[in-house]
Amino acid sequence: MVSQRQDFAIGIDIGGTNTVFGIVDHRGDISYRGAISTRKHDNPNDFIEELYHALQPAIDQVGGMDSIRGIGVGAPNGNYYNGTIEYAPNLPWRGVVPLRDLMTARFQSPCSLTNDANAAAVGEMMYGVARGMKDFIMITLGTGVGSGIVANGQLIYGHDGFAGELGHVTIIPDGRLHKGTGLHGSLEAYASATGVALTANEFLERDPAVPSLLRNFAKEAIDSKVVYDCAMQGDKLAGEVYAFTGKVLGLALANFVMFSSPEAIILFGGMTKAGDLILDPTREHMEKNLLPIFRDKVKLLFSELKEADAAILGASALVWEMKL
Amino acid sequence: MVSQRQDFAIGIDIGGTNTVFGIVDHRGDISYRGAISTRKHDNPNDFIEELYHALQPAIDQVGGMDSIRGIGVGAPNGNYYNGTIEYAPNLPWRGVVPLRDLMTARFQSPCSLTNDANAAAVGEMMYGVARGMKDFIMITLGTGVGSGIVANGQLIYGHDGFAGELGHVTIIPDGRLHKGTGLHGSLEAYASATGVALTANEFLERDPAVPSLLRNFAKEAIDSKVVYDCAMQGDKLAGEVYAFTGKVLGLALANFVMFSSPEAIILFGGMTKAGDLILDPTREHMEKNLLPIFRDKVKLLFSELKEADAAILGASALVWEMKL
Repeated sequence: MVSQRQDFAIGIDIGGTNTVFGIVDHRGDISYRGAISTRKHDNPNDFIEELYHALQPAIDQVGGMDSIRGIGVGAPNGNYYNGTIEYAPNLPWRGVVPLRDLMTARFQSPCSLTNDANAAAVGEMMYGVARGMKDFIMITLGTGVGSGIVANGQLIYGHDGFAGELGHVTIIPDGRLHKGTGLHGSLEAYASATGVALTANEFLERDPAVPSLLRNFAKEAIDSKVVYDCAMQGDKLAGEVYAFTGKVLGLALANFVMFSSPEAIILFGGMTKAGDLILDPTREHMEKNLLPIFRDKVKLLFSELKEADAAILGASALVWEMKL
Repeated sequence: MVSQRQDFAIGIDIGGTNTVFGIVDHRGDISYRGAISTRKHDNPNDFIEELYHALQPAIDQVGGMDSIRGIGVGAPNGNYYNGTIEYAPNLPWRGVVPLRDLMTARFQSPCSLTNDANAAAVGEMMYGVARGMKDFIMITLGTGVGSGIVANGQLIYGHDGFAGELGHVTIIPDGRLHKGTGLHGSLEAYASATGVALTANEFLERDPAVPSLLRNFAKEAIDSKVVYDCAMQGDKLAGEVYAFTGKVLGLALANFVMFSSPEAIILFGGMTKAGDLILDPTREHMEKNLLPIFRDKVKLLFSELKEADAAILGASALVWEMKL
């Protein structure tokens, strides 16, 4: 491949378990993929050092650092304004980590940082189903629930860089306790993979006489995939778990629509594998809870980006938005 | 006063009962104020004709239409993109009224239209407590609950111009029916003047043995001001009505903060006359429902603009933002 000066961006997604990275061009083609463990180093400098060496073959392949315009990083609790990762509960580094500045110093290249859901929203806007949209909301449904909000063609960061924590919005006052946050009835407590497992176990305990394929599994073995599989085999209780999850999610989405009136809401992450099982009740309850002027207008879409690629693409997309 | 060419803007606020207007300069000084009835004409053209004649003395006073840069209008259900008022339940005109184009044709001057809460937000940003802020949310607490959301220094209009309907967000699922919208448990059903009156009557019926000064009033005579007066005289039940209202409003505000992470939330409208009686429980429950990273950061402020002036100022402020 013949490379031109600064034709490539490095995209890095720091997850709780693994950090994935790739070299991406303007069209969103990923020319190299790699991964290292996030958990290996308690000191972020050691982590960056390993990342630096892991990236060298990729950088060499596209013609060295002269071909790289910059580095984009998505990370939980990543703050776009400060370039810091602040008190991320799922990462091995405590307190506030000045990741952007550490990266810039080691790579001698400009770096931009944001939280993982915001990065996914930017990726979706540049390479995914949100191409051409100026107003949309990205909801990531995984172990937790994250979000990235685009209005007037821009990510909403808020005054402190922390906007878009829609997983922590209260949907059911005095509802289920979220052990990680201490909040009650938040969206994440229900509409995450963790929430689906909790709902399944609650339903099994609430109706002990109701037969269910889920009773063949140990309590701890019931996860969102098991519930999905049972539902697809016609298990009524498992189906009700997804119906309830969609009801809560749909109510939440209606509230979000009345906030920023997006053209589309894009669902992303592991939970979307449940397909219509989650989409149908979500759409029904979203529409039901909307003011008439918003009804039958908002597209409810699944991301079409591969999950592993989306993280890299979204992070790399930050680079093209950099003001250098 | 010596006027320069296009040094003034006309600000018009169309309310359900009256339409108020004024001539405003760049500093936000209102040099003329007037009002006509909104309800007199079933045909919007007749309304505009009366408005045109009512404004002539004001326009003459600043040097004629040559001194006017444009006209800003705030109206319920006003759509910024289309310049139309769409299905406004409290206005005498049915269906979709192309108000911007009708105004431009009659006044021979550019016109900009938005909904009344958005206009108030712009006014607050230019002349009020939100001066210099790029991220804030304006909540109007009157007969109903409206909102204007500013992020990245811009009003959020959404893809269709209807963003910021925070009064209709569901706060208590399956809660109180809002007769106007058919939705259950929306913010407006509780945190409006109408909602306070309903809550007071509910509390009186729920606890018939509990003594209260409110029992000296006929059911229909209990409004938010009566409840306030009784609470200020130490009436416990009346105090609980405001405590409950603040609890619902605070929970709603926490959700809004986790959406756009504003520097401030500015409360505006008749309900703010209750002062600390509404502000204290609202702040307490907002903080309680926030993720820790948002706590003790968001300013909760009352607008300092006079209510009558704010409407005119906000509408006129639209003119300075026009791209001519």
